[in-house]
Amino acid sequence: MTFKADVFTLYPDMFPGTLGAALAGKALADGLWSLDAYNIRDSATDKHRSVDDTPAGGGAGMVLRADILAKALDTHVPANDPRPKLLMSPRGVPLSQQMVRDLADGPGAVIVCGRFEGVDERVIEARGLTEVSIGDYVLSGGEVAAQVVLDAVVRLLPGVMGNDVSGAHESFEDGLLEHPHYTRPVEWEGRTIPDVLRSGDHKKIDAWRRERSEALTRARRPDLLKT
Amino acid sequence: MTFKADVFTLYPDMFPGTLGAALAGKALADGLWSLDAYNIRDSATDKHRSVDDTPAGGGAGMVLRADILAKALDTHVPANDPRPKLLMSPRGVPLSQQMVRDLADGPGAVIVCGRFEGVDERVIEARGLTEVSIGDYVLSGGEVAAQVVLDAVVRLLPGVMGNDVSGAHESFEDGLLEHPHYTRPVEWEGRTIPDVLRSGDHKKIDAWRRERSEALTRARRPDLLKT
Repeated sequence: MTFKADVFTLYPDMFPGTLGAALAGKALADGLWSLDAYNIRDSATDKHRSVDDTPAGGGAGMVLRADILAKALDTHVPANDPRPKLLMSPRGVPLSQQMVRDLADGPGAVIVCGRFEGVDERVIEARGLTEVSIGDYVLSGGEVAAQVVLDAVVRLLPGVMGNDVSGAHESFEDGLLEHPHYTRPVEWEGRTIPDVLRSGDHKKIDAWRRERSEALTRARRPDLLKT
Repeated sequence: MTFKADVFTLYPDMFPGTLGAALAGKALADGLWSLDAYNIRDSATDKHRSVDDTPAGGGAGMVLRADILAKALDTHVPANDPRPKLLMSPRGVPLSQQMVRDLADGPGAVIVCGRFEGVDERVIEARGLTEVSIGDYVLSGGEVAAQVVLDAVVRLLPGVMGNDVSGAHESFEDGLLEHPHYTRPVEWEGRTIPDVLRSGDHKKIDAWRRERSEALTRARRPDLLKT
């Protein structure tokens, strides 16, 4: 079964976007996954095609209406659809590599891209949307966040990275940041590749890389070492 | 002075991508910021236009060459350019809303999009690149991460959100996740907007929202409350 992504957005033209080229784009063209972007506005019911309204209780911004978003979802996603339904939102649980792996092991994802001040809480509850955040910063909308999720997931799908094993040893896969990399030329602007990497002694090289990974993680991300 | 973004990538066609529409796209069209995407491959020196090579010390994947990336940067970015130079990388310091605000207050950003297994460490050091990560997951490349940074920054640039003050009270702006939102219809699928939000009592509404923000943050992101 092919990983099936359905995205609900007010800007369907933003898709596939970055997902249409390079690794994800080739996999899309090869049919290793599928992507449909639906315009939430197509479910509007008035002649102005409005999808939002002012927040109950007052305040700035506009809120995406529960009835409109529910109608959009119900039109394209059957009630018994087994795929997780995500709402991209800074209020969500933080996206982790484990969550990415779980998504990649599943049948696909339904992803709602937030816009405006927020989404009516009732549709989040009634349609079982899981709010997911890609990081502690505020975006103008969930579209680029949805592309982040899908890019991370698609590279793990069977066949996408082919025989390339570079997925195996990476930042977060073992709880540490990656060690520094070097390649030819051996000398550049007076800077040389560290001797150990040219020693041919793979035990020493592995130890050096491990030590560098641990030092980098301690310096930049001590929070990763706490667990 | 207009915020000036220069992106270095192997996939310049991915830009402006999501940044070409909606809020960021309108601001781009209005000249409130500028964006150039340069192809690192244009700085290759052999007839195959190769930009990467195998990792020193062995291992999977390919490493972006120091000499090629430096040439690309030096061609388009003067040595005294005051803009911060970022390298999108899962090894980087986590992007925060404070970092986004600092970038928005500055003259722009030079952003290098990593691909392959990594980038030769020497060019990171020699050109003073700051590694920045958008979250603890692995992407196929830095392009969508660069769009995340720029989307977050652009919405804070003067004139972009206009008189809309919805930037003022948001997740992370005050260290808490945002409270739930509701809008019309008052009743939907048997679910009603909480009474307090229809009370007209703004003191009570503020207290309710604060309480909901704190409860949500405790439940989903206790790490935000520790500081």
